[in-house]
Amino acid sequence: MEFIFHYPSFVTILDFIGTFAFAISGIRLASAKRFDWFGAYVVGLATAIGGGTIRDVLLDVTPAWMLDPMYLICTAMAMFFVILFGRYVIRLNNTFFIFDTIGLALFTVVGFSKAYDLGYPFWVAIIMGSITGAAGGVIRDIFINEIPLIFRKEIYAMACAIGGLIYWFCLVAGLESHWSQVIGGMSVFIVRILAVRYQITLPILKGEETEEKE
Amino acid sequence: MEFIFHYPSFVTILDFIGTFAFAISGIRLASAKRFDWFGAYVVGLATAIGGGTIRDVLLDVTPAWMLDPMYLICTAMAMFFVILFGRYVIRLNNTFFIFDTIGLALFTVVGFSKAYDLGYPFWVAIIMGSITGAAGGVIRDIFINEIPLIFRKEIYAMACAIGGLIYWFCLVAGLESHWSQVIGGMSVFIVRILAVRYQITLPILKGEETEEKE
Amino acid sequence: MEFIFHYPSFVTILDFIGTFAFAISGIRLASAKRFDWFGAYVVGLATAIGGGTIRDVLLDVTPAWMLDPMYLICTAMAMFFVILFGRYVIRLNNTFFIFDTIGLALFTVVGFSKAYDLGYPFWVAIIMGSITGAAGGVIRDIFINEIPLIFRKEIYAMACAIGGLIYWFCLVAGLESHWSQVIGGMSVFIVRILAVRYQITLPILKGEETEEKE
Repeated sequence: MEFIFHYPSFVTILDFIGTFAFAISGIRLASAKRFDWFGAYVVGLATAIGGGTIRDVLLDVTPAWMLDPMYLICTAMAMFFVILFGRYVIRLNNTFFIFDTIGLALFTVVGFSKAYDLGYPFWVAIIMGSITGAAGGVIRDIFINEIPLIFRKEIYAMACAIGGLIYWFCLVAGLESHWSQVIGGMSVFIVRILAVRYQITLPILKGEETEEKE
Repeated sequence: MEFIFHYPSFVTILDFIGTFAFAISGIRLASAKRFDWFGAYVVGLATAIGGGTIRDVLLDVTPAWMLDPMYLICTAMAMFFVILFGRYVIRLNNTFFIFDTIGLALFTVVGFSKAYDLGYPFWVAIIMGSITGAAGGVIRDIFINEIPLIFRKEIYAMACAIGGLIYWFCLVAGLESHWSQVIGGMSVFIVRILAVRYQITLPILKGEETEEKE
Repeated sequence: MEFIFHYPSFVTILDFIGTFAFAISGIRLASAKRFDWFGAYVVGLATAIGGGTIRDVLLDVTPAWMLDPMYLICTAMAMFFVILFGRYVIRLNNTFFIFDTIGLALFTVVGFSKAYDLGYPFWVAIIMGSITGAAGGVIRDIFINEIPLIFRKEIYAMACAIGGLIYWFCLVAGLESHWSQVIGGMSVFIVRILAVRYQITLPILKGEETEEKE
């Protein structure tokens, strides 16, 4: 009973941290484009819940934020945080990077589990994990009229895919669901941290260099 | 019987006016970007039905335009109108502003009611009202590759949210559903008109001004 | 039995060709924008499955790619093809144009049939055919931050709409479903080939030329 109470609350805290960090990332980029408060809130919200919403629409279940006002409230808190401490937010860049990566790891695990538990094959679950983690950032970049960052820079969505694959390996190897989640999530976290620390990037696709000459 | 007949037809007329005005707004912006007729039609249609479609996908019901060809026909009429009277359309700017605001008010009420009647809590209904009213314009701006206007200028989606909140207050206060709709819709209309008339805007978020120096 | 076996496999081959050609088109444009491998794969995948996914979400059925890994594998093959033969891909432009047009024709027929078989009226089926054929390219262009090509150039989605209309005429005229599909698909193919060959375009909408003076 004790455990049942503590376990969800731990996940809820992680979910809150991830949502907060994702919302901050959207609000910061919106403020750099001189959006008004409403626009910044919408971009923050879309960054935080966009991936999960696309996943839930594809899985044909009700989007999580329509069942729990936590996501809206958490985004509002991120908004007030940026309004109050805007000029200090940049100095906290490393802190937010850790939060953002925790969010990425957790969102990936949530997305994978949700699809897998509905009976979809592992490759659908991996894609759903990656969509949950990374699609919010794509929507954010479309809203601020930039080429989505994840297509050009850093191991980001790839970390979700790798973590999802490891999660699945754990399940296939017979590990308990709970431990598979922890290991899958840790994998996302570690892959992302290592990639940024050692500036590991994927190769640029250069098949079309001649096109620019045309 | 008389009343039952007249009431839907009045809403249908308002719905037609709103769809027409929203379609015109999409077609005009598409023509400024030199889209061809087909492109302009698609942008007009997306502006008119985009918000309602996102709402219906999230609520997991069949999008309204798939059940009634009125929206396609109305957009085609808007298209012919712009083709025939293009150079006079600008002079009618104030007329279209009124139509567009009527559309915004009506779409907000329709979106709120649809979610609320399905049993969703009031904050989901307010968001669905705002999506119905404002998301079509966001899709329009993404299609023409501009930063969505509503994130940067004017009280627009905010008017939907305020109107939705007032609508809900009316329901909580025990007002009849019909009157709550009228008051909610009027609120959207008045907030938007006042905001434009007195150039009321939300503050710009300036948390990140130092980022540009980097 | 023989026939039952051969017919689906023929459609499967066409579906594979269409998916491959659509994926190539996304990957090529992503590489011109210097996306990394992951980004290029995602853009290729979105181009290939985006239209069908929007259609299936609107029709409230499970997206095809979530039931069959063929689309992911086919996109991966397109990816390796561009990585290995990138500099030769341009010389194959005409070959890809044919493949792309076959894909367009097939996707249109699949989209129309799926909606029509679910009991939707013909105009919904025509739109679903056009979305299946053309929406993937719109998503691709949004991802690479360009104004969607189909809104400005060439008879593309129009070919889907015309083919869908002819498909429906055949059904109304009492033709067998199988032959209606063939004729509808051929119509898309022919309209597109003729439009490109004779540079037939739709008129540009010029209702708003004065706006730029403001």
